[in-house]
Amino acid sequence: MAATGREFFTVKTVSEALTGFRPAHVTGVETVALDDACGRVPARVVRAREALPGFDRSSVDGYAVRAADTYGASESIPGYLRVVGAVQMGTAALEEVGPGTAVAIPTGGMLPAGADAVVMIEHTTEATTDTIEVVRPVAPGENVVRFDEDVAAGTAIAPQGRPLRAQDVALLAAAAVVEVPVHARPRVTILATGDEVAPPDTQALSPGQVRDALSVSVGALVREAGGEPSPPLIVPDEDGALREALATRFGASDVVVICAGSSVGMRDQTAGAVAALPNSETWCHGLAIKPGKPTLLAHSDGVPIIGLPGNPRSALVVFRLIGMPLVRRAGGWTSEPRVGTLRAALSRDLPSAAGRLDVVQVQLSDTGLAEPIFGSSALLSVLTAADAYVIVPEDANGLSTGEPVDVFPYG
Amino acid sequence: MAATGREFFTVKTVSEALTGFRPAHVTGVETVALDDACGRVPARVVRAREALPGFDRSSVDGYAVRAADTYGASESIPGYLRVVGAVQMGTAALEEVGPGTAVAIPTGGMLPAGADAVVMIEHTTEATTDTIEVVRPVAPGENVVRFDEDVAAGTAIAPQGRPLRAQDVALLAAAAVVEVPVHARPRVTILATGDEVAPPDTQALSPGQVRDALSVSVGALVREAGGEPSPPLIVPDEDGALREALATRFGASDVVVICAGSSVGMRDQTAGAVAALPNSETWCHGLAIKPGKPTLLAHSDGVPIIGLPGNPRSALVVFRLIGMPLVRRAGGWTSEPRVGTLRAALSRDLPSAAGRLDVVQVQLSDTGLAEPIFGSSALLSVLTAADAYVIVPEDANGLSTGEPVDVFPYG
Repeated sequence: MAATGREFFTVKTVSEALTGFRPAHVTGVETVALDDACGRVPARVVRAREALPGFDRSSVDGYAVRAADTYGASESIPGYLRVVGAVQMGTAALEEVGPGTAVAIPTGGMLPAGADAVVMIEHTTEATTDTIEVVRPVAPGENVVRFDEDVAAGTAIAPQGRPLRAQDVALLAAAAVVEVPVHARPRVTILATGDEVAPPDTQALSPGQVRDALSVSVGALVREAGGEPSPPLIVPDEDGALREALATRFGASDVVVICAGSSVGMRDQTAGAVAALPNSETWCHGLAIKPGKPTLLAHSDGVPIIGLPGNPRSALVVFRLIGMPLVRRAGGWTSEPRVGTLRAALSRDLPSAAGRLDVVQVQLSDTGLAEPIFGSSALLSVLTAADAYVIVPEDANGLSTGEPVDVFPYG
Repeated sequence: MAATGREFFTVKTVSEALTGFRPAHVTGVETVALDDACGRVPARVVRAREALPGFDRSSVDGYAVRAADTYGASESIPGYLRVVGAVQMGTAALEEVGPGTAVAIPTGGMLPAGADAVVMIEHTTEATTDTIEVVRPVAPGENVVRFDEDVAAGTAIAPQGRPLRAQDVALLAAAAVVEVPVHARPRVTILATGDEVAPPDTQALSPGQVRDALSVSVGALVREAGGEPSPPLIVPDEDGALREALATRFGASDVVVICAGSSVGMRDQTAGAVAALPNSETWCHGLAIKPGKPTLLAHSDGVPIIGLPGNPRSALVVFRLIGMPLVRRAGGWTSEPRVGTLRAALSRDLPSAAGRLDVVQVQLSDTGLAEPIFGSSALLSVLTAADAYVIVPEDANGLSTGEPVDVFPYG
């Protein structure tokens, strides 16, 4: 095959890859402070050791009362209650609420003994210095957040398999959980290959050289997926160099990304170097996606390996669609995040072959149009000019002008 | 007012707040390495100093040719070209392409002098060891990425006013920009107030105490908006304590968040302490939003101050809607990010008053239903149980069962 330069890919569809390529490796467990826990994935369910709140609380500013004392109260026939004290925030009330009495209470205050409801201050007036008129009745429990109404002791307050959100860390803080066992961030080895590739800080390139645009940008997507990218390594196009780099870096990798070089020769080298890893299996060598067909998916001992196309735009498209889910799963995610879309109308036809998924960059107009941007898959400027992208699904023969489409915004 | 416990809010709508409350303060400029630049907001437009690519490149594996030599070539009448060399990646070709000759070239290779197009290897066969048959013609420029086709020298390659995305840092790397001038992350001072509030690591609470759930969770949203939260500080409910804390922390703040305590007394203290800051202006004291009405918006010398409602759920809802945009603007964003939504059908009616914006937490079913979760605005569990939220707009009198709604996923 190499002799003719023609290849036979084991081509899979994107949906097959997303559902079928599931290497088993998941990172280990580490403990992080709650301050650093948002976005991290708990390694096990965390349960509340105590009820929240730990006491009946007022949910309004007003007066703690016995509800029965307010029955029948109205603007024309108010009920009268003697105010015997006031709840201070953060302490138990000193006074008990007996029949015919009330205790002033602020929002969040602890309900005094004897009280079973709170009358909002708006539904009272001061009759004398120590008497209020109540103009509306309350039912037992009204304007009270009950002991354990937020969380009963033993309730799961942090989930497994998806990252913690702001509200999750709020509840953990309320429950005194200040350390969380989480999956370690997946360490993602990124290898850039090719004799033409120079580090980004190369100010003057030799003829034929290009700078490594992928290590830093794939690294940024790795971080967005919760992983930690390795320091960049550019591997020359020499026999054995990639194999050696892989062997050296593999042990410290939870995911491996090879920016595979776009030529047939580099692709062959990549395939060979991956096949040489222990217990490796090449799952596909080619994806039915445009741009991005020359993508390799493999694993070694359950650690996923993705060989990205050499064209930078293709590589970033494929890494976003296929690579980021691999990083998330290696980091303990058990399902994908829900991703919202915008709705727009296509400004022109998008032809596509059935059986292939197309990712098309678009610019969004203020009038709700999605304007496709075309250009070689080597061009990064197509991506940087885009606000969003449209997916032409595998089962569609393209999309038509004016058709409403789901648009995925880029950040 | 304080004597009766009744308040007169300067109530504004959420849309008025988002468009009308625009304190002027923006953070200064710092330089970050490109590795750390994704998500940061460039402080000025960065331009390419040179063209990208810097030379004509092949976009396929094949043969560099003179296009005119291929005209008329077909499967039945192939053209014959003598192969005079092969381009090595990362170097200039040694051979020139003269009439009737071709030079083998890999994808990304530098076009040799004399060539103006590339024939894909799939459209050739080897006739002899140094001759190929060409079975399809190419036009000048075909399968070539032209010098400066991606970026011309002087083109803007990093925008102002919105954060860098993965593709932006890719293009910067390609252009040798390894440091980027960005807005400093806004330092966000978060003050939790109230005598009842204990730090999250308080294992045993006294009666009436609750743990500070907001500092850590608001801090997480601050980070999500690109800011840096201050170390938490709990301010007691003493006269002057909040004023002193504000005075001490204000100088190192680009945004101030006061978790304001939910009682009227604490709200009055907050308003007073904010009013005592230099050149302060209270923009509103009350938002037409549910939950979250007792929100204060003010600024001092252009530094935004947001007083959040005391109920944790209200506070997180308001901070997400109003606080995060303030942090982003202080960090140099000039517009809000495009936020995608999911479409779902409401499982039941959502009543709402016109003129007020309601934020309703929902659970999403596999069948596309959005099931509202109800409960006191004191309950964090309403937020932690939610997959997403629905907004009942200011101009709507609620939403009806079965109505299709835009759903904003939580993380």
